[in-house]
Amino acid sequence: MSNSYRNGELITSDVATDRALLYGDGVFTTLVIKDGKGLFIEEHFQRLLKDCHQLKINNPPLNDIKNSFASIIKNINQGIVRISVSRSSGERGYLCVNPIPVFWISTSQWPAHIETFRASGINVRYCQQRLSQNSTLAGIKHCNRLEQVLARNEWQSDDYQEGLMLDTADQVIEGTMSNLFLVKNNQLITPNLTLSGVEGIMRQKIIEIAKFENIDVKVTTILVDDLNAADAAFVTNSVIGIWPINRIDNHCFVQNPLIKKLQQSLNKFI
Amino acid sequence: MSNSYRNGELITSDVATDRALLYGDGVFTTLVIKDGKGLFIEEHFQRLLKDCHQLKINNPPLNDIKNSFASIIKNINQGIVRISVSRSSGERGYLCVNPIPVFWISTSQWPAHIETFRASGINVRYCQQRLSQNSTLAGIKHCNRLEQVLARNEWQSDDYQEGLMLDTADQVIEGTMSNLFLVKNNQLITPNLTLSGVEGIMRQKIIEIAKFENIDVKVTTILVDDLNAADAAFVTNSVIGIWPINRIDNHCFVQNPLIKKLQQSLNKFI
Repeated sequence: MSNSYRNGELITSDVATDRALLYGDGVFTTLVIKDGKGLFIEEHFQRLLKDCHQLKINNPPLNDIKNSFASIIKNINQGIVRISVSRSSGERGYLCVNPIPVFWISTSQWPAHIETFRASGINVRYCQQRLSQNSTLAGIKHCNRLEQVLARNEWQSDDYQEGLMLDTADQVIEGTMSNLFLVKNNQLITPNLTLSGVEGIMRQKIIEIAKFENIDVKVTTILVDDLNAADAAFVTNSVIGIWPINRIDNHCFVQNPLIKKLQQSLNKFI
Repeated sequence: MSNSYRNGELITSDVATDRALLYGDGVFTTLVIKDGKGLFIEEHFQRLLKDCHQLKINNPPLNDIKNSFASIIKNINQGIVRISVSRSSGERGYLCVNPIPVFWISTSQWPAHIETFRASGINVRYCQQRLSQNSTLAGIKHCNRLEQVLARNEWQSDDYQEGLMLDTADQVIEGTMSNLFLVKNNQLITPNLTLSGVEGIMRQKIIEIAKFENIDVKVTTILVDDLNAADAAFVTNSVIGIWPINRIDNHCFVQNPLIKKLQQSLNKFI
């Protein structure tokens, strides 16, 4: 007796009752395919599992996901893949009885501008949209991303490549699609993500690489004043790698050799 | 060159790139069909429009939604309908260029227990999951509902029919799927929803009915102590109408004639 219609057309697939569609009730991860391989693929699978665990999405079908992923990327030399896990499809309502997780894999083309901005650096602006604080959702790459959507759509021009988001307590947390690092006295500083933000795989890799290179990394609260007092800053995610920030609104940064060094170290992996 | 797969199967429909599925980037409303008509249907359409406007989902196709809704409910005597509007389908990424909103309509059966609990009242518990505060999302019935999902899945037994949610500042805001009202000295008190929560259509109707019946309504901050000091309490939404609360965890309420009076007034409409 339950029916679903999209733009007036009956949808017979249970896609229509997918809880990711109804409630954003799922998690995802985005990664790069290069030379036919998923970069940091095991880390991405482990993050999916960890995020599922934190949201009590039980028994995500990891083996099926891995097999499907391998088959789908078989003929892709370079590209981007998003892997999502939804809690289940099923009945209306927030309660989920006998959930059976669903996984989605989407491929898209490698955009040429990614490498350009690694070399040239980017312009960044502060977004008006704030991130809310909630320790039970912080860090997780879940499918409730309205705050990021609203922030990213505050501008449509090409003048800015990323926007920085503050939380409701005026702390600088991250970019709309990236994590943030500051360079100050040859130390790396990155925001604490215990109350909001996404713990990116690339953020973790940068921290590991920095430690390997004997660069000190501090995870702490960052305010706008800290950014203004920094020597340099950059954003990271699994697709862009490291994009140096040339300016944030009217505040300019100069090039910093430490960022170049990190990029070179990262290039061994990506 | 973009492809999407669900549980390993290629999905050719652009459902796979629906932004509600990817990011919870949409809004919805749920209403009752009775005697072949949508209850408070105009209010629900207006709320959809208002919520779209607040999230900058531009030009939702209201006429198409209305026509499709009329056609879909034609043969339904009694049931529940969810209407959703997603910002668009399309490319990967938070930025949405040239969006074309998509609408979804789903029907489901009328559950018999709804009327039972109007008469018997319900048992309620406090949820551990907190609601985050964010003024730009507060009040809106958007598709980012992970907090409600996590809260509602804290229990699976039939011993409790609803859970109450506090925000991160210890204010009592609402039920997982309902709005909350207290009765105190023949006055109605309902939580302020400027920082979190959903402004339900039925909440608004209750406020209107109370005013018509010369019952004072106060919208304010509510703490657990206020609930414990109340004479009575009830929850509301467009499907359940009014469910009196018999107890919250171990705190019991007695029946209150004001709730019965509101139910009788509401019965003229539903």
